[in-house]
Amino acid sequence: MDDVYTEKHQVVYYEVDVSGKLSIPMILNLAILGSTNQSAALGMGNERIHANNVGWVVLQYDMQIDRRPKVDEVINIKTQAVEYNPFFAVRKFWLEGLDGEPLVTINSIFAMIDMQARKMIRIPQVMMDTYQAKRVKHITRIPDPQDITTTTTEPQGTNYHVRFFDIDHNHHVNNAHYFAWMQDPLGADFLKKYETKRVNIKYENEIRYGSEVVSYYKILPSVGGEVITLHQIKVDGQVMTEAEMYWQENQA
Amino acid sequence: MDDVYTEKHQVVYYEVDVSGKLSIPMILNLAILGSTNQSAALGMGNERIHANNVGWVVLQYDMQIDRRPKVDEVINIKTQAVEYNPFFAVRKFWLEGLDGEPLVTINSIFAMIDMQARKMIRIPQVMMDTYQAKRVKHITRIPDPQDITTTTTEPQGTNYHVRFFDIDHNHHVNNAHYFAWMQDPLGADFLKKYETKRVNIKYENEIRYGSEVVSYYKILPSVGGEVITLHQIKVDGQVMTEAEMYWQENQA
Repeated sequence: MDDVYTEKHQVVYYEVDVSGKLSIPMILNLAILGSTNQSAALGMGNERIHANNVGWVVLQYDMQIDRRPKVDEVINIKTQAVEYNPFFAVRKFWLEGLDGEPLVTINSIFAMIDMQARKMIRIPQVMMDTYQAKRVKHITRIPDPQDITTTTTEPQGTNYHVRFFDIDHNHHVNNAHYFAWMQDPLGADFLKKYETKRVNIKYENEIRYGSEVVSYYKILPSVGGEVITLHQIKVDGQVMTEAEMYWQENQA
Repeated sequence: MDDVYTEKHQVVYYEVDVSGKLSIPMILNLAILGSTNQSAALGMGNERIHANNVGWVVLQYDMQIDRRPKVDEVINIKTQAVEYNPFFAVRKFWLEGLDGEPLVTINSIFAMIDMQARKMIRIPQVMMDTYQAKRVKHITRIPDPQDITTTTTEPQGTNYHVRFFDIDHNHHVNNAHYFAWMQDPLGADFLKKYETKRVNIKYENEIRYGSEVVSYYKILPSVGGEVITLHQIKVDGQVMTEAEMYWQENQA
């Protein structure tokens, strides 16, 4: 398919976490780098669309992790705009070994907003034609993460302050930072014992500089060695983000 | 000089801060990437030296910033091991435009440690021969940052918790993270108004996972449009890092 964009990337030392493997936030950064570069190559880069006062925002990622690449590994970043309707666009991302080994597969849903009003707008058809995406009546939805509040025990909350260097060019927190807030409260013992295998994350509201973030999590009972954690991020009592993560014990 | 190592790098979106320019932590990450790749190319990579239970630690950086490159700019990362004595090695780094425009110049002092004992050891001569560094009796020192405690008003402290994802493969905080702790307390108004022109940072003790960091700063009276800030990071009352930063007002 020539509507799949591909670029090579070598994993470097500051992109890996304590495990020596590509960090989860950096997986997302590289995925978005791929779509940014595809858009620029097609003449639909941020510079051009921001000049029209419109921009893309991600609503949800569903990330399947087969194997996180190690430092120095060379991988392919691939992405494709799959389908869209007037309000939602579905984009896929793949990180692969150069031999085609699947490493990470990401399904995602984006919307287009008016940059000033921060309100959703219709996606111009010329834009999706450029990506050769398929126009559909209903996009293929990603299921919602399980709701943390429907389980019986009270989830714990940990406070984080949004720092100046957490915000990007648009004065919003880079989506990749949310992972640190969500995973950090699980603690070193958990994070060293388990490897993230799947993350379903839904962004409901944008987080701004200076906000006090409270990160809640709950660890569900383990089934067959697989552990599921539920996460919720709130600011002033309002839900900003929800996520469901699947974990497997690290092989010794 | 063929003992200067050079590699190209294109600045990408997640490497820039809110100003749209290469962030200060990323400047350091790229510099160290250069020396890591030079070392690997010379057969003195971390993998080999860590196998001998030794490793490099940085003691001090003195960074001069002429112009921070913007997103998409292609730059050269250059580095050279300049001189050494049995305990200290002096290394220089440059970020340059492809036309040779100086962007960032960094002078630095490194030591070698026993990785288990975390104690300084003698630098093996074979190592420095590899880099063609000059053996000297006394290395050219970098002046200490001005002491924050010698000035009269009480510096303010802001608390930061060392998060799991702040630590690197060696279970220590990546040096680049210290900048966020030091600069974040200055606040958005200051950080948007002023541009960092020089940073002299001295690492005295390693910061570990789970530590509660207190970041102190003081803004010295402005002289001729130049502002100097002094910084100190403490853990349990012990000084871990000190820095002196020079700032100039951003051009409108």
